[in-house]
Amino acid sequence: MGYYRDNIEAMSGYVPGEQPQGTRFIKLNTNENPYPPSPRVMEAVRETSEDALRKYPHPTADAVRDTVAAMFRVTRDNVVCGNGSDDLLRMIFTATLGPADAVTVTDPTYSLYETLAGIQDARLDVLPCDDDFALPVARLAASVSQLVIVANPNAPTGLAVSMDDFRRIARSIRGVLVVDEAYADFADATAMPLATSEPNVLVMRTLSKSYSLAGLRFGYAVGSAELIHGLMKVKDSYNCDALAIAAARAALDDQAWMKRNVDRIKTERSRLTADLRSLGFTVLDSRANFVMAGPPDGDAEGLYRKLKERGILVRYFNRPRIDRFVRVTVGAPEETDALMAAVKSLT
Amino acid sequence: MGYYRDNIEAMSGYVPGEQPQGTRFIKLNTNENPYPPSPRVMEAVRETSEDALRKYPHPTADAVRDTVAAMFRVTRDNVVCGNGSDDLLRMIFTATLGPADAVTVTDPTYSLYETLAGIQDARLDVLPCDDDFALPVARLAASVSQLVIVANPNAPTGLAVSMDDFRRIARSIRGVLVVDEAYADFADATAMPLATSEPNVLVMRTLSKSYSLAGLRFGYAVGSAELIHGLMKVKDSYNCDALAIAAARAALDDQAWMKRNVDRIKTERSRLTADLRSLGFTVLDSRANFVMAGPPDGDAEGLYRKLKERGILVRYFNRPRIDRFVRVTVGAPEETDALMAAVKSLT
Repeated sequence: MGYYRDNIEAMSGYVPGEQPQGTRFIKLNTNENPYPPSPRVMEAVRETSEDALRKYPHPTADAVRDTVAAMFRVTRDNVVCGNGSDDLLRMIFTATLGPADAVTVTDPTYSLYETLAGIQDARLDVLPCDDDFALPVARLAASVSQLVIVANPNAPTGLAVSMDDFRRIARSIRGVLVVDEAYADFADATAMPLATSEPNVLVMRTLSKSYSLAGLRFGYAVGSAELIHGLMKVKDSYNCDALAIAAARAALDDQAWMKRNVDRIKTERSRLTADLRSLGFTVLDSRANFVMAGPPDGDAEGLYRKLKERGILVRYFNRPRIDRFVRVTVGAPEETDALMAAVKSLT
Repeated sequence: MGYYRDNIEAMSGYVPGEQPQGTRFIKLNTNENPYPPSPRVMEAVRETSEDALRKYPHPTADAVRDTVAAMFRVTRDNVVCGNGSDDLLRMIFTATLGPADAVTVTDPTYSLYETLAGIQDARLDVLPCDDDFALPVARLAASVSQLVIVANPNAPTGLAVSMDDFRRIARSIRGVLVVDEAYADFADATAMPLATSEPNVLVMRTLSKSYSLAGLRFGYAVGSAELIHGLMKVKDSYNCDALAIAAARAALDDQAWMKRNVDRIKTERSRLTADLRSLGFTVLDSRANFVMAGPPDGDAEGLYRKLKERGILVRYFNRPRIDRFVRVTVGAPEETDALMAAVKSLT
């Protein structure tokens, strides 16, 4: 018998992707952006005063809420900021799920959702995707769970569904629909308009991928004032620090920088997809900054290991259905070159 | 019927102290340090690279864990870092408390504990302090709750109890004892040795007060490897950002800077206590960087309001027993001068 709740003692916790310190790897395993953040971000960080660090930050990061509100033509009351999307997800799971409740997810999807359900001691209702990994929209719409959460584009497949599908799901369920749009800037579709047209939809964004700020930990969610108000109650009092608030605002103010990098990554994604397919790989049509690539011999784990020996990190998931693939972050052209050279030498 | 759990819909959320933006107030309401953080902190922030922001931070902030481990002669496995103490408190409440469970606290104490219990839908077992606000040690030792949490020095009284008392509590209870030492650097006592000698004790520290870093959001907890391992499971994957990790390490490396500021604040605390007492105030013997001061006429709320009109913010708690006091942060000498001048003009 441990000191913690049985569900906590029994669980194993989320395992983040490898973050080797020191050693020089080509890191294509955690979907970081190969390009640096906007120079305005670095300026905002350097200009943060002693006084801003000495005093508590703004409790709800209103400067960023107002920036986000202007971007999407909503109001400050429709926006909540988080210490990364992880913080927002945790707030949402905490607010919606007790031990008798359930969350509906797809398989595959971002594995953190299962961890968060375990922490809440809630039931995980898993809907398998089709054989081609298409999202099971009709079955999602039939969910009776307190929470339905879909990553769009989905992780780790990179596949996206339309706003119409999300509207259909939102209007059919009685719980909250969360659309986790961590990768939306790399796609052409978003469910953002539903965040204010539907009372039960939250749409999440992060600055980790398209804004090149995984190290900063900043995300936000948009939804009805009622849903946002509830999340504010479970939020840590000062969840975003003074540096993150200043940097996030600067990043969001430089849309041109973000879009230029996204365009470069989309171009590189096309090339990487085509090159891998030409070697016989099965590559899903990704709308994110990564591709799921299945080697011709089906030995994804072996490929992951051999690439690592050659100094290239990709992500391998030892889970049914996706264990035939490696997930490869779309990097800079020279990183694609290095990856393709290594793959060719191995196959 | 809302979309969230009944306990969340019913609760009102924690109300942080006022953080006026823009206007010039003498801020003696949220226990910030009047002196700036170490120059090494500012240097660490300015030197943080684009690459450090672009990539995910170290998931468990091991550079800081190792620094803390060296400070207290424990190992890395005895330390977990948090996005401020709030993050650590939330992790602890999440790991220990389900809807059938209880947390024992004193009255008064830090009001966030009640909010966190509400979020977990757990029962709050409240033990009143004595008339002179001394902690009810014997009754704490008799607690049968899953979690017992004591701020030491206590908030908002500033009173402290000894390590021997905490050892007695730890050995009597079957749950986890958390000693929240946010203000310990301003006191002469600490329960830190119990964090590794007792299997069920967690001792928490923050960089917000003594290290002048409320804006950074950084705290840590020390305890047995087993307790720390459990907290790691409920921790957000990357809860401390790259800037906070670099800055926290720099701050902890400059103990001399922190201790010098703490000494100045302790000197000022003595003066503020004596000056207020000379005007007939009841002032508790604080071991923290604030004092609880009851005006001679008992109208603490009136005093709070009149001071605010004069540009001086102190904290007033509209709660039984402590509503006869205002809590005044110990500031710089010129802030004490301004406060005393205003108080004299009012009484």
